[in-house]
Amino acid sequence: MAGTDKKRDMIAEGPAIILCEPQLGENIGMVARAMANFGLIDLRLVNPREGWPNEKAVSAASNAHHVIAATRVFDTLEEAIADLTYCFATTARPRDGHKQVRGPVEATAELRGRFGAGEATGILFGREKSGLKNEEIDLADEIVTFPVNPAYASLNIAQAVLLMSYEWMKSGLADPADTAFKGPEITPAPKEFLHGFFDQIEEALSQRNYFRSANKTARMKSNLRAVFTRAQFSVSELDVLRGIIRSLDGFMRKDGKMRAVGDESGDKTDNE
Amino acid sequence: MAGTDKKRDMIAEGPAIILCEPQLGENIGMVARAMANFGLIDLRLVNPREGWPNEKAVSAASNAHHVIAATRVFDTLEEAIADLTYCFATTARPRDGHKQVRGPVEATAELRGRFGAGEATGILFGREKSGLKNEEIDLADEIVTFPVNPAYASLNIAQAVLLMSYEWMKSGLADPADTAFKGPEITPAPKEFLHGFFDQIEEALSQRNYFRSANKTARMKSNLRAVFTRAQFSVSELDVLRGIIRSLDGFMRKDGKMRAVGDESGDKTDNE
Repeated sequence: MAGTDKKRDMIAEGPAIILCEPQLGENIGMVARAMANFGLIDLRLVNPREGWPNEKAVSAASNAHHVIAATRVFDTLEEAIADLTYCFATTARPRDGHKQVRGPVEATAELRGRFGAGEATGILFGREKSGLKNEEIDLADEIVTFPVNPAYASLNIAQAVLLMSYEWMKSGLADPADTAFKGPEITPAPKEFLHGFFDQIEEALSQRNYFRSANKTARMKSNLRAVFTRAQFSVSELDVLRGIIRSLDGFMRKDGKMRAVGDESGDKTDNE
Repeated sequence: MAGTDKKRDMIAEGPAIILCEPQLGENIGMVARAMANFGLIDLRLVNPREGWPNEKAVSAASNAHHVIAATRVFDTLEEAIADLTYCFATTARPRDGHKQVRGPVEATAELRGRFGAGEATGILFGREKSGLKNEEIDLADEIVTFPVNPAYASLNIAQAVLLMSYEWMKSGLADPADTAFKGPEITPAPKEFLHGFFDQIEEALSQRNYFRSANKTARMKSNLRAVFTRAQFSVSELDVLRGIIRSLDGFMRKDGKMRAVGDESGDKTDNE
């Protein structure tokens, strides 16, 4: 992305992130950073313990100034979600009641669908120590919970926001295997390229008596071809290999000190 | 999970997490915590700048003592991955070369398959400031990168480890919609339960002259039934609603002050 116009690439949309009585400014800052990483912008705080604005939040937010600048503070959770039509509550603990429980992938798919339909949605996160109270969860439409190690289930609040933000971003990808940049197209070369490589390497090895005796040649060629076939080399990879063989072959011939493999000094040949 | 045996539920397996020259102990601790959250155990450090063991790492690791205790330190990346058969390198920047680039879902599916076949695998993470060097990426088999906001692509190292650990955990779920605990089975009630509710509420409303006149009754019942039909209430939800109607109805009759809706004092009836 180097050199692209940052303003143009900026993503800033999607569900609101609502933190209920967050305790530490540093965590709020890390939440803002996680939101910026995955294109969210709407951060709402209910009664932050250290007040707002908060210096520690700003410094922990790294460069996520646009999220910090847009952050709003509310006295009650009811006010914070007044304009939303659909909310998920995050919790690591089973709760009584009539609410459906979703995993993050299903939950963000639901949010993405509602976003597409123009709805304003949100995700509620609880206090660092104690999470959401039952009466706060009552205000949400559904519950979302993370698949965690049962013996070690407690997620940091910024990590929980990060995972939901990440799944939100993924829910908007046309193809989940899409990546921001691509590796080279690596498809196996048509066989004629492989056969050309076999000709080259077998000729070079033959010059050095690699195949030793006529009755071993077929078996040794078969082994060699099997090794280079299984790797499914692409055309450009075979080009690299041909260059290597050409270089080794050329060096040996220029030097004029070719020795058959198996001679007592043969192993040193390449290093001379 | 309250009350279950923590030792029994502990997950500690999967790919190694290899940090190349991590700068801050605090980040190493947060990496350990993220690994513990998603059941990973094998943390390897190449030349940590602040040395090892590290007090700040221990304190940032929260309760992930088992990961910190198992952490190993190496002088070179080659030594750190010597026993592994397959490595991913994480990077946010396109790199030259022949390597395939995967998203986290594809990458962890690959790792999960190799894990099932008994292979030892790993994921490489670079320095906080500068990531992995090209020659370090050369030692990996493939590249993995995250779908991020192009204008705000820089992930904290602990967040990057968290996302890969989370996807690793998800790759082991039989059904990605699985959650650690379930909400109630909410299926729409068979129609006879809904019709029973209609009978009850319409009878109670009828007593209060809610339907006003015979020529409006059909239309008003139709509207009422439409509202309660669309919500697709379950049997247990209809039980809650029937209890509410029963309570309202009972109160009114005991009190003996029933007034038809539309009377000047009618709106206050419920609050008397």
